[in-house]
Amino acid sequence: MYVIVVYDVDQKRTGKMLKLCRRYLHWIQNSVLEGELTPMQLKQFKAEAHKLMQDNDSLIVFASRDEKWLEKEVLGAERGSTDTFL
Amino acid sequence: MYVIVVYDVDQKRTGKMLKLCRRYLHWIQNSVLEGELTPMQLKQFKAEAHKLMQDNDSLIVFASRDEKWLEKEVLGAERGSTDTFL
Repeated sequence: MYVIVVYDVDQKRTGKMLKLCRRYLHWIQNSVLEGELTPMQLKQFKAEAHKLMQDNDSLIVFASRDEKWLEKEVLGAERGSTDTFL
Repeated sequence: MYVIVVYDVDQKRTGKMLKLCRRYLHWIQNSVLEGELTPMQLKQFKAEAHKLMQDNDSLIVFASRDEKWLEKEVLGAERGSTDTFL
């Protein structure tokens, strides 16, 4: 599955969240990561993220069964290292 | 098209960028918006965003031809008003 994760967590946990996300996905922008995960990996990632998150923290997972169903275009500066698909 | 936009722009322009994005999409998280756009609307949005952006500003558009090709799950606090699809 092609996965995009965006998170908005308390300042105290941003470092740990980024570290966790980077174990599974590629960083492409501030609090935004993407990559290919198997359903099992996605399940593990969500469980770990859940454990880390508290109070008002928020994380959104967008998952598409196939990367080609999702067009990606970067306007302006490209932060991450992955190329543009569009 | 179902569209997700994530942006990372200079502090001076975040207000204007949010205002522009909100004219087209629903805010769901810090610098993250989503919604349905026609190809023409998406084109207009990108042109306006391009005009607004400078230097190292970055904006990524993810577009899926059909919302059902993309599963969305919110972990933790839901910021935006849209419901969870998953």
